[in-house]
Amino acid sequence: MDIDKIRSETPGLSHGIHMLACGSALPSQSVVDAVVEFTQLESRIGGYEAHTQESTMLDATYDSVARLVGAQRHEIALVENATVAWCQVFYTLPLKAGDRIITCQAEYAANYVAFLHRQKKDGIEIDVVPNDEAGALDITALDALITDRTALIAITWVPTNGGLVNPAAKVGAIAAKHQIPYLLDACQAVGQMPVDVTTLKCDFLSATGRKFLRGPRGTGFLYIKEKWLERLEPVMLDHFSAPLEDSSLYSLRSDARRFETWENNYALRAGLKVACDYAMVLGLEKIQSRAWGLAASLREKLLGLPGTTIMDLGAEHCAIVSFTIDGLDPVETVALLRQKGISIGVTTPASTKLDAERRHLPVMLRAAPHYFNNEDDLDALIRALKDML
Amino acid sequence: MDIDKIRSETPGLSHGIHMLACGSALPSQSVVDAVVEFTQLESRIGGYEAHTQESTMLDATYDSVARLVGAQRHEIALVENATVAWCQVFYTLPLKAGDRIITCQAEYAANYVAFLHRQKKDGIEIDVVPNDEAGALDITALDALITDRTALIAITWVPTNGGLVNPAAKVGAIAAKHQIPYLLDACQAVGQMPVDVTTLKCDFLSATGRKFLRGPRGTGFLYIKEKWLERLEPVMLDHFSAPLEDSSLYSLRSDARRFETWENNYALRAGLKVACDYAMVLGLEKIQSRAWGLAASLREKLLGLPGTTIMDLGAEHCAIVSFTIDGLDPVETVALLRQKGISIGVTTPASTKLDAERRHLPVMLRAAPHYFNNEDDLDALIRALKDML
Repeated sequence: MDIDKIRSETPGLSHGIHMLACGSALPSQSVVDAVVEFTQLESRIGGYEAHTQESTMLDATYDSVARLVGAQRHEIALVENATVAWCQVFYTLPLKAGDRIITCQAEYAANYVAFLHRQKKDGIEIDVVPNDEAGALDITALDALITDRTALIAITWVPTNGGLVNPAAKVGAIAAKHQIPYLLDACQAVGQMPVDVTTLKCDFLSATGRKFLRGPRGTGFLYIKEKWLERLEPVMLDHFSAPLEDSSLYSLRSDARRFETWENNYALRAGLKVACDYAMVLGLEKIQSRAWGLAASLREKLLGLPGTTIMDLGAEHCAIVSFTIDGLDPVETVALLRQKGISIGVTTPASTKLDAERRHLPVMLRAAPHYFNNEDDLDALIRALKDML
Repeated sequence: MDIDKIRSETPGLSHGIHMLACGSALPSQSVVDAVVEFTQLESRIGGYEAHTQESTMLDATYDSVARLVGAQRHEIALVENATVAWCQVFYTLPLKAGDRIITCQAEYAANYVAFLHRQKKDGIEIDVVPNDEAGALDITALDALITDRTALIAITWVPTNGGLVNPAAKVGAIAAKHQIPYLLDACQAVGQMPVDVTTLKCDFLSATGRKFLRGPRGTGFLYIKEKWLERLEPVMLDHFSAPLEDSSLYSLRSDARRFETWENNYALRAGLKVACDYAMVLGLEKIQSRAWGLAASLREKLLGLPGTTIMDLGAEHCAIVSFTIDGLDPVETVALLRQKGISIGVTTPASTKLDAERRHLPVMLRAAPHYFNNEDDLDALIRALKDML
């Protein structure tokens, strides 16, 4: 990786140090240019006209996203955000009273709200897989939890609140063995590490553009395995997802786009395409290796500060580093760091409620170096934290 | 209205003639600047950081939208597009087998697909109000259609396929008299004419940013009358619409934002705010008067061309002009006009299926002059059409 080149292509780096890829990462100049240029094109010739003129490029966004996750293009729907992607599938699955869904301790709060919603509305029941000793989803326990009432396995691969990497592919193997539908929330994984739906054996995968993928905010996508395409009727339809054949009959699209609506912001799609292509050219293995390496280095350096506790679970850790430092209020610390030109964030118990309750988690600091960061960035953060202590 | 100033503030006008406000209008420079500057801010300091820094401005988008339609800010949800806004309410209403919904001949196809969907899924029945002699929704017929099974009136104010303006306020008076919920699709009305939810007596109103309002693509909003706010549970929930109190209990937001999801593109919201404010400063009465006046003038000029038929229904006509010209294929005509720097569009039977079937409508030409257009623009279109004949 040519880190100097990558850094020079990231305009935000000349304005400060940014280590919040798990929130909304700094985009490359090429992503910004794609969004801005398309927006300006729309303002010059009109929105519909720009869409028509650039339809080949816009359509290729499906190819780029499909390549990123090892899917076929007709298995991809482009939507507003990861939650919409996830909900579109979850609420569409015909779960009925007594059906059980299996999830993990680290499940994202948005998904968990939806579980509770269908528990109340449809009478489904929720099983939470215990963690193994290291704190990741326990594969053996998952296998033991499955009954003939289990109708769905829905887990978060990488949680929002730390370095944990759940064994998503092993979960997929178990789901496949039992022929149970498997919905994987890959929001924090996409752009951070290789994602391949065939290896993962997932039926559905949801993700966002704005995090490690470095795409625009307000972009997300959904992968739906081919065999499901014609079997799921979205909860809400419009004349894009289901065009009218006559005034009494609609016909659902046969591809994953039956989960889209007619109107979108195409500038953002143009940006998402560039972000996918940019990551693929760099290579996801290399991205993972560098980002995870920097995160490991950051953990080590943080432990040199008095009163620091690293809160990450699991035997292997990804690029998200969660920690507390005795005597430093996380929210104040983030504000003070920002004044010094360093961006990290906090993670609150609300975003991973199960895990937070079980571990009695406070508000924690959260830093996520990406491949464009370097050791100097880490040292600057450590120095700034030391100054505060 | 200072038309010269307005035209100088519309960058697209120096690149050609654009009369497709019913599709996606040319934005003002200030709207483009808001979107581009926010996008660039995000790229400099990060997405979350930009959101925090500009939170007051972004939050004020709710005030701007509320002012535009005469609502209170907590009655507004900002969503991805008008269809999402409309569907969020329609699919949330607890309609059951045997319930009847009343709609109009000119109903937008997206909504009609949803009617058919719930007909199939929930056993609701659909009543279509006949048109009056001029072609607008017949108010007397509407009143006569209402029974004690009528559970919803859902109509399109201004259809996508012509100059018709349905009597939305009169429908509201009847809905109020019978205490029937009233969902108004105001997609083509917002930004074209004054919209006041109190006068309209609607319970719900959905709209888009990109059409006559001149906002960014990928923006829409939903008005929900205060009395409904705590009574509707969205079809899909996340931890923004319904934060977790603990790991077994969520609590729905008390404002209209329970229909939003957590993640959005904030640059587009910034643009939407500017578009609302811009229209309000100009004044919606003045905007209506000028746009409708230009459309009336265009109809007159078009009738000077041999073989032209104006297809607009209703006794009064808005800024959308639909027409056919013998010997000119609409799709080819639009493409040829674009080569000459003139943008108008086509409207296909698919987008207003009921009306299209009833009137045996072909693909038609569709032009929508806005207040920034002028008589020279109209004359240029007429000259170009004449050349083609």
